[in-house]
Amino acid sequence: MTSATGKAAPEDVGRGRVEALSDGVFAIVITLLVLEIKVPHLAAHESLAELARALWALAPKFVSWVISFVTVCVIWLNHHRLLKIAGRIDNGLFWWNANLLLWTSFIPFPTALMGDYPANRLAVSLYGLAMLLMALGFVLLRWHMLRTPGLLQDQADRSAFRRGLRASIAMGPAAYAVGAVLAWVSQVAAFACYAAIAVYFVFPHGPSRGR
Amino acid sequence: MTSATGKAAPEDVGRGRVEALSDGVFAIVITLLVLEIKVPHLAAHESLAELARALWALAPKFVSWVISFVTVCVIWLNHHRLLKIAGRIDNGLFWWNANLLLWTSFIPFPTALMGDYPANRLAVSLYGLAMLLMALGFVLLRWHMLRTPGLLQDQADRSAFRRGLRASIAMGPAAYAVGAVLAWVSQVAAFACYAAIAVYFVFPHGPSRGR
Amino acid sequence: MTSATGKAAPEDVGRGRVEALSDGVFAIVITLLVLEIKVPHLAAHESLAELARALWALAPKFVSWVISFVTVCVIWLNHHRLLKIAGRIDNGLFWWNANLLLWTSFIPFPTALMGDYPANRLAVSLYGLAMLLMALGFVLLRWHMLRTPGLLQDQADRSAFRRGLRASIAMGPAAYAVGAVLAWVSQVAAFACYAAIAVYFVFPHGPSRGR
Amino acid sequence: MTSATGKAAPEDVGRGRVEALSDGVFAIVITLLVLEIKVPHLAAHESLAELARALWALAPKFVSWVISFVTVCVIWLNHHRLLKIAGRIDNGLFWWNANLLLWTSFIPFPTALMGDYPANRLAVSLYGLAMLLMALGFVLLRWHMLRTPGLLQDQADRSAFRRGLRASIAMGPAAYAVGAVLAWVSQVAAFACYAAIAVYFVFPHGPSRGR
Repeated sequence: MTSATGKAAPEDVGRGRVEALSDGVFAIVITLLVLEIKVPHLAAHESLAELARALWALAPKFVSWVISFVTVCVIWLNHHRLLKIAGRIDNGLFWWNANLLLWTSFIPFPTALMGDYPANRLAVSLYGLAMLLMALGFVLLRWHMLRTPGLLQDQADRSAFRRGLRASIAMGPAAYAVGAVLAWVSQVAAFACYAAIAVYFVFPHGPSRGR
Repeated sequence: MTSATGKAAPEDVGRGRVEALSDGVFAIVITLLVLEIKVPHLAAHESLAELARALWALAPKFVSWVISFVTVCVIWLNHHRLLKIAGRIDNGLFWWNANLLLWTSFIPFPTALMGDYPANRLAVSLYGLAMLLMALGFVLLRWHMLRTPGLLQDQADRSAFRRGLRASIAMGPAAYAVGAVLAWVSQVAAFACYAAIAVYFVFPHGPSRGR
Repeated sequence: MTSATGKAAPEDVGRGRVEALSDGVFAIVITLLVLEIKVPHLAAHESLAELARALWALAPKFVSWVISFVTVCVIWLNHHRLLKIAGRIDNGLFWWNANLLLWTSFIPFPTALMGDYPANRLAVSLYGLAMLLMALGFVLLRWHMLRTPGLLQDQADRSAFRRGLRASIAMGPAAYAVGAVLAWVSQVAAFACYAAIAVYFVFPHGPSRGR
Repeated sequence: MTSATGKAAPEDVGRGRVEALSDGVFAIVITLLVLEIKVPHLAAHESLAELARALWALAPKFVSWVISFVTVCVIWLNHHRLLKIAGRIDNGLFWWNANLLLWTSFIPFPTALMGDYPANRLAVSLYGLAMLLMALGFVLLRWHMLRTPGLLQDQADRSAFRRGLRASIAMGPAAYAVGAVLAWVSQVAAFACYAAIAVYFVFPHGPSRGR
């Protein structure tokens, strides 16, 4: 995987370290998400009613936190399965992976935006748009692996991988586009759509069919 | 553990990467906890009395920080012992683990809430409730490992594991429920209860008896 | 690499753990960058126009975030290639590496500064200066590896490494100095220069030619 | 190191995962330190003079950031050397290590406090006190390794280790106590003392003499 000679081959990157970088980003994003839920300021420190009201007002923050948490776990899982099939990591694969990490690391922003303004059609729609770009990152990663000779492991089932690429468009960018459009009609429906996409991936769907 | 063939088996996940993701979350949570203690604003920058008063007012934040720090170390330790007994990691185990990570990553919020409003019965009780859900995550993880054939290593002592499951209910959700109820009577007693649960796990109690 | 005897040799450090520390810092910096983009405060929570205006005002933050994200990926890649050529890690290499990590971990500050004040010549120039110091960190790391006997792997091509050192000055500190000066004439040109340096390294340039 | 049997031995913990947890905490602390330096608010966005003045006012924050950064690198290095000599990790070693991590993860708070109030004697003294507790954590860790049979590797030079323990008291808690006292006379002298302690450890001092 990594050349053992002194001359570093610039096109090849150690798979272990790319996984470590990606896992680090996923673990940090997953843990930072909760930091966007700020402790409410209470005028009367011991008031139960004021605290209960303040926490109730945070409900949309909690909901968008859980949706994004499950989504990042799904990203981790699909990323893990995808890299297992990669025989080697060339320069292109590194950068398509970096593109996926860019959009994954962006998730705390649209999550906080949607949680703060759950009735703002633009805010809820932008969450779907950001997730669409992340899901597109997966499609481009898969597409690069398929079209570049030698990136898929020899034993990999190329036609199953091609079917997986197609499925990843339907349940990825296309599904998020539906959510982003739904947000202009009903924000609750958009929340439900975003949650449904994440939950869909919680249950296994056969080999290589991930996002 | 991970299939070496090109076809990724969607039900199986590499143990090393699940441990890496979990360890990442634990390390980040443990380190982020202190960020909830904000540097106080002083009107007179050089005033010793004002700084001393401001730090004294932060005492409940320091106490809840230490309790949560020790608790996350206990979570790490129990998680480590639990995954050592797992022979393989199926899709269900991954998601029950993700549920545990969700509640673990949530800890900074109730910690900050309890530290900011240590005399608010609801705030102190909610800390226990959040910890209860985290501890329940351990119970569900253990229960999944016990009832799914092939998840426990062949040499694992199933009856000891079953006893450990029972113990993990008593010293986990049940103990935190006591703390959450205590908070309505005496907040100091609830703090003591939360601290006692963490300290209990600092000392070893025989194989597989962890939370 | 690490002595297996009980006496720890203070001059030698395990390569795996230095890589782990560095990768951890890179992953955290890459993920923290987005936290500097704060969710805007809206007077009218459901106003599309107000949200659109507020997000548009954040455009320079998004641009500086993407430039810094790509730059940290480039740092990771060059660091990875450099450490692959190292035969062992002595005390000096550890500390020159720590110097590089210092300036890399500093990146969120100039990124936020440039994003907040994109028309302030000093702010935009300081971004280039901070990056210059980071790039200088790479030059010093390479220089230490070249002049210390035994640090380069035996099979390493020393003359190629020497050429790489020279190239890393040109496309590193020198290029960032150009950007930092440009900022006093045109801030847009400086942004373009910083982006161009990062994009230059996205494409491979032959062995050991990295920053 | 870790028992391969199904029964998890509660007294023993895998060395690799303890190192991973510790490295994670060190990497996160090192990277979070810079987040305590907030981008200044400018009334006139394009004013060079206002920005220059605001950055100059941040000088103590930059100085305390660099001191703490180097200190955490030293902690990492000494921790690395210490764990290399450990033959196995028992429950006590895990918790003395956790105590060290507690005080290490606390560092961002006294760093920010000293940076915000560099002329406040109490603030500057508390930095030394926090570091004293961290350095005491190293002493206790070493002491536990020495007095517990079987924790040191068989080939370890016990008398050198005993000398190292004594040296770690002098250049650890004792040195920080000097700094914490100095702060009441001259804050600049205390800054210099804290910096000197860190710099002392940058240069190697023979086997096992680390803090």
